[in-house]
Amino acid sequence: MTGILAGLRIVEGSAFIAAPLGGMTLAQLGADVIRFDDIKGGLDNDRWPITKDGRSIYWAGLNKGKRSIAVDLRSPRGRELLTALITSPGEGAGIFTTNMPARGWLAYEELSKKRADLIALNIVGARDGSAHVDYTVNAITGFPMVTGPVGHDGPVNAVAPPWDLATAYAGAMAILAAERHRRLTGQGQRIVLPLQDMALAATSALGYIGEAVVNQVDRPRFGNEIFGTFGRDFKTKDGRFVMICIFSDRHVDALASAGGFADSFKKIEAAQGVDLKTDAGRWLARAELCAIIEPWVAARTAADVSEALKKAGALWAPYQSSASSRSTRPTCSTIPCSPSSISPASAAIRSPPRRCSSARSRASRP
Amino acid sequence: MTGILAGLRIVEGSAFIAAPLGGMTLAQLGADVIRFDDIKGGLDNDRWPITKDGRSIYWAGLNKGKRSIAVDLRSPRGRELLTALITSPGEGAGIFTTNMPARGWLAYEELSKKRADLIALNIVGARDGSAHVDYTVNAITGFPMVTGPVGHDGPVNAVAPPWDLATAYAGAMAILAAERHRRLTGQGQRIVLPLQDMALAATSALGYIGEAVVNQVDRPRFGNEIFGTFGRDFKTKDGRFVMICIFSDRHVDALASAGGFADSFKKIEAAQGVDLKTDAGRWLARAELCAIIEPWVAARTAADVSEALKKAGALWAPYQSSASSRSTRPTCSTIPCSPSSISPASAAIRSPPRRCSSARSRASRP
Repeated sequence: MTGILAGLRIVEGSAFIAAPLGGMTLAQLGADVIRFDDIKGGLDNDRWPITKDGRSIYWAGLNKGKRSIAVDLRSPRGRELLTALITSPGEGAGIFTTNMPARGWLAYEELSKKRADLIALNIVGARDGSAHVDYTVNAITGFPMVTGPVGHDGPVNAVAPPWDLATAYAGAMAILAAERHRRLTGQGQRIVLPLQDMALAATSALGYIGEAVVNQVDRPRFGNEIFGTFGRDFKTKDGRFVMICIFSDRHVDALASAGGFADSFKKIEAAQGVDLKTDAGRWLARAELCAIIEPWVAARTAADVSEALKKAGALWAPYQSSASSRSTRPTCSTIPCSPSSISPASAAIRSPPRRCSSARSRASRP
Repeated sequence: MTGILAGLRIVEGSAFIAAPLGGMTLAQLGADVIRFDDIKGGLDNDRWPITKDGRSIYWAGLNKGKRSIAVDLRSPRGRELLTALITSPGEGAGIFTTNMPARGWLAYEELSKKRADLIALNIVGARDGSAHVDYTVNAITGFPMVTGPVGHDGPVNAVAPPWDLATAYAGAMAILAAERHRRLTGQGQRIVLPLQDMALAATSALGYIGEAVVNQVDRPRFGNEIFGTFGRDFKTKDGRFVMICIFSDRHVDALASAGGFADSFKKIEAAQGVDLKTDAGRWLARAELCAIIEPWVAARTAADVSEALKKAGALWAPYQSSASSRSTRPTCSTIPCSPSSISPASAAIRSPPRRCSSARSRASRP
C-alpha cells in the first residue's frame, strides 16, 4: 500500500455506517484494512440501494480500498482463523475495529490473550448497552424537533446521518491515537465509542445543551434559517432554490454588491438600530433582510442569480440533487463507475480508489 | 496534561465549527491545544447562542480543554510571536490547525522556514478556493431536497451540521496520521481538507452518487422513513413522538413481541410475498407495517409505548428536545455549568472538562 498510513494493518468486523466508513477512511489513507463477514453474507450484504441485478451499492460505497474475506463465524475453525488474523504479529498489526458485540471469542479479554498490546475499537449504540442507530440517537438529541418548516407538527429526521459520520471519523482518530500510545509505551488499548455519546458530546459542543442549561430556553424551530446570523433558502423565477448566507463583514458587502442592496442595508440598520456587520444585528434584522433579498431572487432565473452572487464573491450555493451534484460539479471526479466494480462480501476484492477525495494529505518534503 | 495524546502541542487559529471542534477533540484526549484569536476578538467571540449578559455559549462549547490567547494579528510583533509559537521546537510540537486563509505569514512555505517538519492542517471551504460553510456544501450534496415531509416544496436544511462534524473529526485524524508519519520519517506535512470534498466523499460513501450513476435514479423524498429498511416516527395518544426502526431479524421479533404483532407480520409476509427478515422485504411492505404499528402507538401514551418497546428490546427512541435530553438522560452528566465558566477569547483560560464524553479511550494494561 502507498499513503500516509502505510504499514498499519486493521482487521474490521463491521456493519451499518460508522464502523465500515471509519475503516474505509483509514484504507484510503494507505492502511491495509481487511474486512470480514460471515460466509453467508453479513448484515450489509444486500443493503439498499441495490443495482437492478440485486448487488448492494451501499456495500460497495462503504468498502472501497479494503480487502474483504468471508468466514464461517459460527465454526471454531473460523473463529480461530480470525483470532489469529486480528492478533497477528507485526508492529503495525494487532488493530481490530468492530461494531459487533465484543463478547465471547471477540471480547478484548480473549483476544488480548493472543496479543497483549492489541488495539480494539468497539463502536456501540449506547454506554448502557442498549441498541441504538443514528436515527434513534438523533431523536434523543433534540435536532428533529427543530429541523424542518416552521409550524410543522412533529419531528423531521436527518437524511445524511450526522452521528454515524462523526463516529466514523472519531473512531478512525481514536485508532491512530491508540497506535501512537502503543508505539510510545508498548501498551494496547480497548476503546469503547458509543454513538449516543458522540451525538450528545456534539450537541453540547454546538451550544444546544448550554443554551438549555444557562438560558433556560429550548431553541424553537427556525425552518431553514441559520440561527444567530443570516442565512436561508430563496426561490428563483424558474423554480430553483439557492442558499444565501452571511457569516462575516465581507459576505455582507458581497451580497450588497451582488444585488445592489447597499442603500437598503443602510436603511435597515437605521430603522432597526442594528449593525449588519455583527451576527446579532443580522439575526435580529433577518426578516427585513429577507424582505429585500426574496423579491430580487424571485425576479431572476437561477442562472442570473448564480452569476451575480458568484461575481460578487457572496457566500451562497445552489440546491442540487445527488445526480446533478455528480454531473455538474468538477469537484466530483469522473472516474467511470460500472456495475462490475460492485462486489458482494463473498470474494476477496480490492476496490477502485474513491471517487471524491476525503482527507487530502499532501506530502511536503521540506 | 493527562490523556492518551499527552505530549502533543497544537496551535489553533480557528473560527466556525470544524476547526475548533477538531482542536477541542484533541484537547479532550490530552493534547495541549492553544487557540489564538485577534486581540479585538475573533469571528466567534460573540456568536450566538449568547447568555443574557452577552457572553457566547457557542464559543464556550467549542473551546473546552484548550488554552486561549489573544494576539494583535495585524502587528509584526504579534505575527512574530505566533510564528515562534507555531514552529517552536519539541518532538510533539510544531503542529498548526487553522481555517484562516493560509497565506502570507501563515502560509506553509513561510512557517516551514522556521520549522522544516511542521504539520499544518488547513480546513478550507472548497478545493477551488471558493468560500463554503456547512449550509452551502449541504445544498450541493442533494440532501436538503430529500429531507423533510413528502410533498414539501423546497429544501430542508440540516440543523446539526453533518459536514462540519465530519470535517472536525477527520481533521483531528489527519493530524494524528501526519504526526505518525513525522515520527517515522522526520517529514512534515501540509494537509488541505476541503469541507466540500468531505461532504461529497461521504455522499459517495453512503451510496447516493452510486445510485444516481449506476441506477440512473435520483432518490426522491421519503419523509421520515429510513430508506431501504423499516423505520419512521409515530405519534402517541398524548401527542409525543417515537422513532421505531428495524435493522435486523432481532428487531423484527422484538417489535412483534412489544405490540403482539407476530400474526399480523405473518399475514403481511403472505399477502405481499415478502420476507420481513430482509431489508428489501421490510422496505417493500413498509406501508403495511405502518398500518399495523401506527394505531397501536396512537392508542397508547408515550410512557406505555416506551415501556413495551424497552421491555421487548426493540430498536426505538423517544423524540426529545435539547432541554429534555439534558435533563432526563443519565448519559448527559450533571456537572453544574454556571455562566461564570463561559469566558471570552480575551483571557487565557482552561475550561472545565466536557459534560458528555466523546471518544472514550480506556487504558488497558495487558
